[in-house]
Amino acid sequence: MAAPPQPVPAPAAASPEVFRLGFIGPGNLAESIARGVAASGVLPATAIRTAPHRRPERAEAFSSIGAHILETNAQVVDDSDVIVISVKPQIVRQVLVELKPLLSEEKLLVSIAAGIKMEDLQGWSGHRRFIRVMPNTPSAVGQAASVMCLGEMATENDENRVRSLFSAIGKVWTAEEKYFDAVTGLSGSGPAYIFLAIEAMADGGVAAGLPRDLALGLASQTVLGAATMVNKTGKHPGQLKDMVTSPAGTTITGIQELEKGAFRGTLINAVVAATKRCRELSQS
Amino acid sequence: MAAPPQPVPAPAAASPEVFRLGFIGPGNLAESIARGVAASGVLPATAIRTAPHRRPERAEAFSSIGAHILETNAQVVDDSDVIVISVKPQIVRQVLVELKPLLSEEKLLVSIAAGIKMEDLQGWSGHRRFIRVMPNTPSAVGQAASVMCLGEMATENDENRVRSLFSAIGKVWTAEEKYFDAVTGLSGSGPAYIFLAIEAMADGGVAAGLPRDLALGLASQTVLGAATMVNKTGKHPGQLKDMVTSPAGTTITGIQELEKGAFRGTLINAVVAATKRCRELSQS
Repeated sequence: MAAPPQPVPAPAAASPEVFRLGFIGPGNLAESIARGVAASGVLPATAIRTAPHRRPERAEAFSSIGAHILETNAQVVDDSDVIVISVKPQIVRQVLVELKPLLSEEKLLVSIAAGIKMEDLQGWSGHRRFIRVMPNTPSAVGQAASVMCLGEMATENDENRVRSLFSAIGKVWTAEEKYFDAVTGLSGSGPAYIFLAIEAMADGGVAAGLPRDLALGLASQTVLGAATMVNKTGKHPGQLKDMVTSPAGTTITGIQELEKGAFRGTLINAVVAATKRCRELSQS
Repeated sequence: MAAPPQPVPAPAAASPEVFRLGFIGPGNLAESIARGVAASGVLPATAIRTAPHRRPERAEAFSSIGAHILETNAQVVDDSDVIVISVKPQIVRQVLVELKPLLSEEKLLVSIAAGIKMEDLQGWSGHRRFIRVMPNTPSAVGQAASVMCLGEMATENDENRVRSLFSAIGKVWTAEEKYFDAVTGLSGSGPAYIFLAIEAMADGGVAAGLPRDLALGLASQTVLGAATMVNKTGKHPGQLKDMVTSPAGTTITGIQELEKGAFRGTLINAVVAATKRCRELSQS
């Protein structure tokens, strides 16, 4: 029986340690993190700051959370203990080179830029107290799967701080950076595979005679319910499958069809192909 | 843009109407419903009763919720306004024939027995105030997808009462009984398809180089996150897929692999085959 695949829990909220959290780049993901952090009480909203210069509409999003709105990225760095680099991957280099003169050893930097390696992050910034995080899009609804890896000078306390931040928008694992391409192929690209599965199960319902609305509602709720069962029971999905297949019943008939169509092999291929593509992109 | 596939919400909890709820057959699903109902405040635990005769270990499960433990099914019927028939499908006929002399018009009967048709339920019991419900296994974790259909004499108030009960363990839709075979093929058997998908995505992660535990944890959380996005945003899964596929990126590479393997067609086949099997079983 496989052990429940649970990430290390965030440090207990019993003794919350308040630190100042700045976002360089006030985009959607930064906003999700800020909202989650404030809503879950990991930090008070007033501990959060960003500089939405050139994007005044983003000031409103962060103001509505209760965060401080500053004028420049330099001010955000100066006024923060933990600084999240949440700009588009293409401009991470430029931003880090600009901030380099302002970075002191007390600052912890966190990059959520997809595909930008720790080596480059540390090289461009001249800073070694760095954590790289790969969240995924369900962060917008508080159900992200995030993986983080630590730079040379990041401490255990830094790891705990970043874990508490990303626990506010989902689950968090710590892993070596060498796994990040496969993480991208699995949890980074994986939500799209499940969007396809929900659409297809709904199509199956319609093919079997259901009205479209009912089919789509049942499909998405069934996927949510099945994943919740795996997460909450801690049982291996193969074991849960065995528990719901009666002899010569409807479920094993459906599964037989999935196996005939190489359903599992196809999903394995998708994760492997996406990982390979990630590797290619990070080398180009 | 498709409308969000949401079921009709349960009546507001503002004016909870207390009725006495009895279970004939104190099994696992009955326990899930009782727990959900008590935990969510739909009814006080003291409004719930069952008779775990011949199964003393089940008395403890229901006692721990705070439910009344009676000695016979006849007592449960006598002391309840809404009576859930939660015995195994094979003995529903025998149980209903036994209870027949005790059923008055004020009683609402609810059957959760898979595959037993309304016509038979009404015929065996001689009772027409009946609701048939098809929940699925994630009811154990509060994330069921349930569909109900109404018997000849069931009222709108009966429908609301049953909706409030099953809303305590997940989502509920009302539909015509003719859809129940397809509901079984989709939401009844569907959790097993997703258990296979989670296992396969984890296998894909391992094939791409991830440790097993990390792969399994990321796979189940990614499926949960994607389904939560569909449920919470109300966006069509096809639209959500489009939003996360960057040009020549990793996600579209994975999707290309899924389409090559007829991933969607295979899932459609599974739902249709399970529905067909359900139809066969209900005719045998």
